[in-house]
Amino acid sequence: MSVVKSPLSDADLKVVGEALQGALIDAVDLSLVAKQVHWNVVGPRFRSIHLQLDEVVATARQHSDVMAERASALGVTPDGRASTVASSTAIKNVPTGWIKDDEAVQIMVDALVVVIGRMRERIETTDKPDPVSQDLLIALTADLEKHAWMFQAESRQADNP
Amino acid sequence: MSVVKSPLSDADLKVVGEALQGALIDAVDLSLVAKQVHWNVVGPRFRSIHLQLDEVVATARQHSDVMAERASALGVTPDGRASTVASSTAIKNVPTGWIKDDEAVQIMVDALVVVIGRMRERIETTDKPDPVSQDLLIALTADLEKHAWMFQAESRQADNP
Amino acid sequence: MSVVKSPLSDADLKVVGEALQGALIDAVDLSLVAKQVHWNVVGPRFRSIHLQLDEVVATARQHSDVMAERASALGVTPDGRASTVASSTAIKNVPTGWIKDDEAVQIMVDALVVVIGRMRERIETTDKPDPVSQDLLIALTADLEKHAWMFQAESRQADNP
Amino acid sequence: MSVVKSPLSDADLKVVGEALQGALIDAVDLSLVAKQVHWNVVGPRFRSIHLQLDEVVATARQHSDVMAERASALGVTPDGRASTVASSTAIKNVPTGWIKDDEAVQIMVDALVVVIGRMRERIETTDKPDPVSQDLLIALTADLEKHAWMFQAESRQADNP
Amino acid sequence: MSVVKSPLSDADLKVVGEALQGALIDAVDLSLVAKQVHWNVVGPRFRSIHLQLDEVVATARQHSDVMAERASALGVTPDGRASTVASSTAIKNVPTGWIKDDEAVQIMVDALVVVIGRMRERIETTDKPDPVSQDLLIALTADLEKHAWMFQAESRQADNP
Amino acid sequence: MSVVKSPLSDADLKVVGEALQGALIDAVDLSLVAKQVHWNVVGPRFRSIHLQLDEVVATARQHSDVMAERASALGVTPDGRASTVASSTAIKNVPTGWIKDDEAVQIMVDALVVVIGRMRERIETTDKPDPVSQDLLIALTADLEKHAWMFQAESRQADNP
Amino acid sequence: MSVVKSPLSDADLKVVGEALQGALIDAVDLSLVAKQVHWNVVGPRFRSIHLQLDEVVATARQHSDVMAERASALGVTPDGRASTVASSTAIKNVPTGWIKDDEAVQIMVDALVVVIGRMRERIETTDKPDPVSQDLLIALTADLEKHAWMFQAESRQADNP
Amino acid sequence: MSVVKSPLSDADLKVVGEALQGALIDAVDLSLVAKQVHWNVVGPRFRSIHLQLDEVVATARQHSDVMAERASALGVTPDGRASTVASSTAIKNVPTGWIKDDEAVQIMVDALVVVIGRMRERIETTDKPDPVSQDLLIALTADLEKHAWMFQAESRQADNP
Amino acid sequence: MSVVKSPLSDADLKVVGEALQGALIDAVDLSLVAKQVHWNVVGPRFRSIHLQLDEVVATARQHSDVMAERASALGVTPDGRASTVASSTAIKNVPTGWIKDDEAVQIMVDALVVVIGRMRERIETTDKPDPVSQDLLIALTADLEKHAWMFQAESRQADNP
Amino acid sequence: MSVVKSPLSDADLKVVGEALQGALIDAVDLSLVAKQVHWNVVGPRFRSIHLQLDEVVATARQHSDVMAERASALGVTPDGRASTVASSTAIKNVPTGWIKDDEAVQIMVDALVVVIGRMRERIETTDKPDPVSQDLLIALTADLEKHAWMFQAESRQADNP
Amino acid sequence: MSVVKSPLSDADLKVVGEALQGALIDAVDLSLVAKQVHWNVVGPRFRSIHLQLDEVVATARQHSDVMAERASALGVTPDGRASTVASSTAIKNVPTGWIKDDEAVQIMVDALVVVIGRMRERIETTDKPDPVSQDLLIALTADLEKHAWMFQAESRQADNP
Amino acid sequence: MSVVKSPLSDADLKVVGEALQGALIDAVDLSLVAKQVHWNVVGPRFRSIHLQLDEVVATARQHSDVMAERASALGVTPDGRASTVASSTAIKNVPTGWIKDDEAVQIMVDALVVVIGRMRERIETTDKPDPVSQDLLIALTADLEKHAWMFQAESRQADNP
Repeated sequence: MSVVKSPLSDADLKVVGEALQGALIDAVDLSLVAKQVHWNVVGPRFRSIHLQLDEVVATARQHSDVMAERASALGVTPDGRASTVASSTAIKNVPTGWIKDDEAVQIMVDALVVVIGRMRERIETTDKPDPVSQDLLIALTADLEKHAWMFQAESRQADNP
Repeated sequence: MSVVKSPLSDADLKVVGEALQGALIDAVDLSLVAKQVHWNVVGPRFRSIHLQLDEVVATARQHSDVMAERASALGVTPDGRASTVASSTAIKNVPTGWIKDDEAVQIMVDALVVVIGRMRERIETTDKPDPVSQDLLIALTADLEKHAWMFQAESRQADNP
Repeated sequence: MSVVKSPLSDADLKVVGEALQGALIDAVDLSLVAKQVHWNVVGPRFRSIHLQLDEVVATARQHSDVMAERASALGVTPDGRASTVASSTAIKNVPTGWIKDDEAVQIMVDALVVVIGRMRERIETTDKPDPVSQDLLIALTADLEKHAWMFQAESRQADNP
Repeated sequence: MSVVKSPLSDADLKVVGEALQGALIDAVDLSLVAKQVHWNVVGPRFRSIHLQLDEVVATARQHSDVMAERASALGVTPDGRASTVASSTAIKNVPTGWIKDDEAVQIMVDALVVVIGRMRERIETTDKPDPVSQDLLIALTADLEKHAWMFQAESRQADNP
Repeated sequence: MSVVKSPLSDADLKVVGEALQGALIDAVDLSLVAKQVHWNVVGPRFRSIHLQLDEVVATARQHSDVMAERASALGVTPDGRASTVASSTAIKNVPTGWIKDDEAVQIMVDALVVVIGRMRERIETTDKPDPVSQDLLIALTADLEKHAWMFQAESRQADNP
Repeated sequence: MSVVKSPLSDADLKVVGEALQGALIDAVDLSLVAKQVHWNVVGPRFRSIHLQLDEVVATARQHSDVMAERASALGVTPDGRASTVASSTAIKNVPTGWIKDDEAVQIMVDALVVVIGRMRERIETTDKPDPVSQDLLIALTADLEKHAWMFQAESRQADNP
Repeated sequence: MSVVKSPLSDADLKVVGEALQGALIDAVDLSLVAKQVHWNVVGPRFRSIHLQLDEVVATARQHSDVMAERASALGVTPDGRASTVASSTAIKNVPTGWIKDDEAVQIMVDALVVVIGRMRERIETTDKPDPVSQDLLIALTADLEKHAWMFQAESRQADNP
Repeated sequence: MSVVKSPLSDADLKVVGEALQGALIDAVDLSLVAKQVHWNVVGPRFRSIHLQLDEVVATARQHSDVMAERASALGVTPDGRASTVASSTAIKNVPTGWIKDDEAVQIMVDALVVVIGRMRERIETTDKPDPVSQDLLIALTADLEKHAWMFQAESRQADNP
Repeated sequence: MSVVKSPLSDADLKVVGEALQGALIDAVDLSLVAKQVHWNVVGPRFRSIHLQLDEVVATARQHSDVMAERASALGVTPDGRASTVASSTAIKNVPTGWIKDDEAVQIMVDALVVVIGRMRERIETTDKPDPVSQDLLIALTADLEKHAWMFQAESRQADNP
Repeated sequence: MSVVKSPLSDADLKVVGEALQGALIDAVDLSLVAKQVHWNVVGPRFRSIHLQLDEVVATARQHSDVMAERASALGVTPDGRASTVASSTAIKNVPTGWIKDDEAVQIMVDALVVVIGRMRERIETTDKPDPVSQDLLIALTADLEKHAWMFQAESRQADNP
Repeated sequence: MSVVKSPLSDADLKVVGEALQGALIDAVDLSLVAKQVHWNVVGPRFRSIHLQLDEVVATARQHSDVMAERASALGVTPDGRASTVASSTAIKNVPTGWIKDDEAVQIMVDALVVVIGRMRERIETTDKPDPVSQDLLIALTADLEKHAWMFQAESRQADNP
Repeated sequence: MSVVKSPLSDADLKVVGEALQGALIDAVDLSLVAKQVHWNVVGPRFRSIHLQLDEVVATARQHSDVMAERASALGVTPDGRASTVASSTAIKNVPTGWIKDDEAVQIMVDALVVVIGRMRERIETTDKPDPVSQDLLIALTADLEKHAWMFQAESRQADNP
């Protein structure tokens, strides 16, 4: 017998539970990736990017908590352990060592674009089964897309719009 | 002639007005029930539950205000008077006198589950007529489901997951 | 055997318990009435009265908590449930629908005057049995009389002093 | 090649971009109109309306920023320049000189009603193409409809409900 | 030998000292007059004017302190005693008893206009002898003229602009 | 017909009204006296006493507001005008010009002792007629007696305890 | 000749001085006892009780300061030294070593009940001689009785109400 | 008959009124221009300039309010409507679309230099007619010149000092 | 040539760099483990442990940042990526699914004891090579040992001290 | 079996436990002594010393908590009961009654010098057994030595440097 | 070609630049002198003067920043290096070693009087060339003259006014 | 006879006193150098470096105060006068005039590296004589090394890691 009685049917719960678990992993890894770059970035834009990355970390941490607690609230146990994150994240591994500022920006653009793509799929799949979870995914996506814009706006590509 | 010109058609307004009035009653009674338990709970977990209940009260009061003011904004006069709450609430009456902590948790689980069920219906009925009101109902439901998880997680049933 | 050992004798406790229970009901209903008017008031003075009423709500909520917790502290279980409030309040029922601003002021004057009268009796009856409870009732009455002055000062009657 | 890679298809982007640009103009002009009335209102209700208008300004400024940054995040450049606002706003021009308080209320009711109507259309058109942008438009509309209620509640018409 | 060595010549000090002492008296009495009206005002606009008057009190108290301490800083002992205020103020005595709201506004307009007239003379006389004191008088006058506008904007006269 | 309906009988009201009016005058004058000394004190202890006096001012201003608003709440119009303060205060007039720090302390001790004596009489006379007003007078007296202790503790007399 | 001139007669001062000195000792020892348990409590309810005890400490420290400064304000020198506290407290000595959570609750119930009993006597004895001191004792007692309720509500005895 | 009685002569008022109206337009347009660039800037310095621009917006909004309310306080009705801003601003129109960071800096340098030139003329013309208004224009100019320095310090030209 | 010139010799840097990298991994994994338990804990002590775990998360996150930035400051690039954490942590893997409260406490005791053991070794090895890094490790260890005490104090074992 | 498993060996634990228990007693008694002087000091410097002593109290209270909780974290039960403090403190007993300001300063110098001497021994004895505890003792000593300087700087002896 | 285009003519810029550079040096040295005395003062008034000096430091630091940034804003590079301060300050060198409190006050009076004299000259010379810079110098002088009064009020000379 | 009795032996005091005096000079000059660059930096990275430098200033000022007060607390009078700083600093003199951003970064790297080298020597020499002072030097060094990393990370050299 389950600990938390879900307000959703089993079928809906399966879809929503997977969406939330996926979003949790993406958000946790995004926070780890952003911290990794935050610590290792170098170059003339060091300070600006160093500070900007901590805002990504704050966003990712806050939403990862929302995703995990939403799963628990629906009766699905979330899994945000290091090994699970390492094995199931879709973000490309960040290289070790110092990271040039231009490269740092590109790493973040790539990571955010991948995660946003997956989030938009989750928004679609949760629409019917649970508009409440969908609303939380929408809020997370809005924040990620804002961060993605800002990194793109300062990437090499934007240098010649 | 009405005081506030509604942005909704009459048919939509009827549906949405009823949803908001119902949500208002549920939220007000939830705040009164939570306070009643807050004052009368006893047992080893007294302090923890006493504090947790005030967070339910805060949630319920804040959303009841949102529901009532949303009704007014649509031109429907809200009714949150004691007699209306007493006669139309769906929450089971709380017994008088001291309440053991285990029982307090169960009272809150029961009250929250009933209210959540009704809120999910309101989310559905308001989807087409007024996505703005629906959004407020979704936010309220998300908060209630989080509270419901927490009380279930500490209920007797969760003791043997 | 009672949960909380009262510092008062049984006779004193009966008097004080009734005073606190009565004050609790009055304070809770005052908060519900003030909210009802807060949501439904209309007229040129809408904004001013709308804001003023939330100050009454804050006062009433804060003191209702003090009254209920004081009862518990003396070993008397407080009862602030919707049905109890609805059946034992002395405040006249507020009409449904929009409320003209002048009428809103008058409703509050009437409600406050009734409650103040009952509070002053409670101050008297608790004087000997429990000066600690009396002190809390005095503080509550001082706040109510300040609100009563302000509504009277802006009522129709004050328009021709 | 565009600066910001949009997560939307070109067709969806066109619809959503127009909705956001329109909402931006409406929000910026609403902030300028509310300030104009804030500075020029006179009459017995001067102070109350003067203060209320600054809350409209705060709402309008905050959401105009959200609309513009959302457009940028989608890869569409927003245009909130004075000349664009002046030429494409749907709000009727405010007369110069002192504005009587009753008239001030009416100006705000009219401006809000016009803007709300357009916002509701934008909510509808963005529903399918981009639920994320739609969510931001819903939040903006909820705030505007609350302001609209308050001005209507204190307008001449509400004086005889 | 004086306690504080003035940076001004004796002639300049005499002019500036008188200006500051006069400004001190006006500011102290303005604070007492505004409080008197704050306590005794009645009528439909009671709350709005009651709150507005406390902002005048805050302004007057803050600047009276600046004026007095500026006098001390120049080596002139300030005199803000009740008897000195009563005998040398230029503000017309406020009547005792309740004050109708319209009348309250007019009392404040009259008091502010009188004080502003005297402040403008002080700005002129201190220009050459001490631009530092003049700067403080300018700041005080700017605040008073803002209050004067607000009371005039809500006075009977403004009702038919 | 009076603006504010008093909860007290006419006889009680007369006693309580006089006590509150007297306390108002004492509190207002105490604030003016303390400011006068605050600006004119000199001597090695200048800074300490200068700061201490602003705490007396804060106390006096806060309680004078309570006294006046309590009178209004009972239906008695308070009078805190400069001329009334000057003519009815019991505090000895402060000399003009610089005030030596030892003398400043003595002025405050004398002023506080006189006011405290009158406050204690008011506590007695209001006991039966209005325990609510009495409670406010008790709170004021407690604050004044704390200030009185502090000034006595640093007066010349305390130098040889 | 005394440092601080007491507003009380010698007879009254003796009674009130003893009450305040007694209350000071009780409050200081309560703060030390609560800290001792705060540091040594163990068991499943460790965290909850650990936190709750710091609220008792805060209450006891704040009121002990009020009691001591009130004594000084009346001209009686307070004595809150460790040796005086140790020799004159009425609270039973706490055992050394780890304290089980149930036992911790019982220790606090016992300590609070003893102190409350003595405080109620002090309220009675100070009623006539000094209503100002009595008011401070009443406020202290109200806080202690609230803490006592909370510990009783979670004690073993409350487990079977 | 005018709503607000001006403390200035008609001739002085004309000069000062024009200066304030001009300053209002410049400040409002500066806020719109800075926001436009804030939203559309791209390039490696995106984030730094994006943040810096919001400080210009804050400065411009705050002073535009001061200018407009100063005009009202003198009895001149301010005009800050979009159409008036668009037609009478002296700031060169900003191009639409993305703006390279270097170009963004230059746009702000140009806009600030133009506005500062006009402000310095206003400081001169208001010197005699109204030192109070002049003081507000001086404060505004000081802030603008600080912003102008910062943008120049990071412009292309400063790259080879 | 290295980006950051280390103030340490190569030999010392190797020792200190390894200590900091190890401490970083432990701190990051501790934050992930604590969050995992925070989301999945159930049982009567749910709320208390849920809250306590977020304090561990806050501690671990703050110190992980200090460790990583200290490594960078010494010229050693930190590695806090999910895969590195997963492969090199010394904390035992947490089971998936709901976690009973008693078990949750034990998981935290075990994790903290392991990490503390490794931290104490790092304190020793860094003593000579770099007292600055050692100081940061000492501060981290002090915080961990405080958390370890608290979880042990509420573990099953403490139930029978 | 002990409640808290110590990270130290038994021998080290004995040394460190005694150091922490001694530091706890000194810190608690310092807080009581400083409060005693805070309440009883008289003389021209009353206010300055009265305030300064509360900073000593805050320091002592904060560090006493750190010492006691550090002991618990190591598995040693702290003892801060009044009787233990009274019997094992090294601070000379403070005389009862009023304390002249010069004498108050000397009492604090003496108390601080004694405690500092003992703390420096504890820093030495804990260096090897537990650098974590030593670090906490160092921080406490730094604060005490700062307070000791300040009291010495204003003592009679410093009057003729 | 200059980095920052000055809004002033070359002739005016020379005068204003010298005034600002001089004010910068005076403000920086005042902050260093006040800190020197802050650290070395001894005597019965140690604490009072120690605290007062940090307010001078705060004033001097804040204005030195304004002066330097104003110079930069006008296109003149400010010079606040230790060697420049040491060689061009007008403040007499402070002796090393402990400073008796009376002497500390005199040092500050002397330093402030010298600096104020120079500031008043700068106010005069900048009046025509740049009223904006003059306004900043006036604000600085007002603050310095307030500090100068306070130190004089507590100097030996003020002891016999 | 010295003002402050040192807890150190004369030999230890000499070593520690010199270390603290040296650290004081370095910290004060670092604050002046950082401000000088803060005011004169130009180039594309102006804003980022301008802000970063104020964080160095805050760090340097805070620690210079700690160093000086620590010296006083040990009985050694600190010397932080401009002439002493100018003559004994080890930081290379900063050139006058505008400073290109790249050069600004290099100046800070150089200054920090020099100061850190000296601080590390002071940490070593104070280890035995006074672990308390050493702890303060360690904290200062940790902050400086963090700043040094950040400037190196954005220096030209880091551009090609």
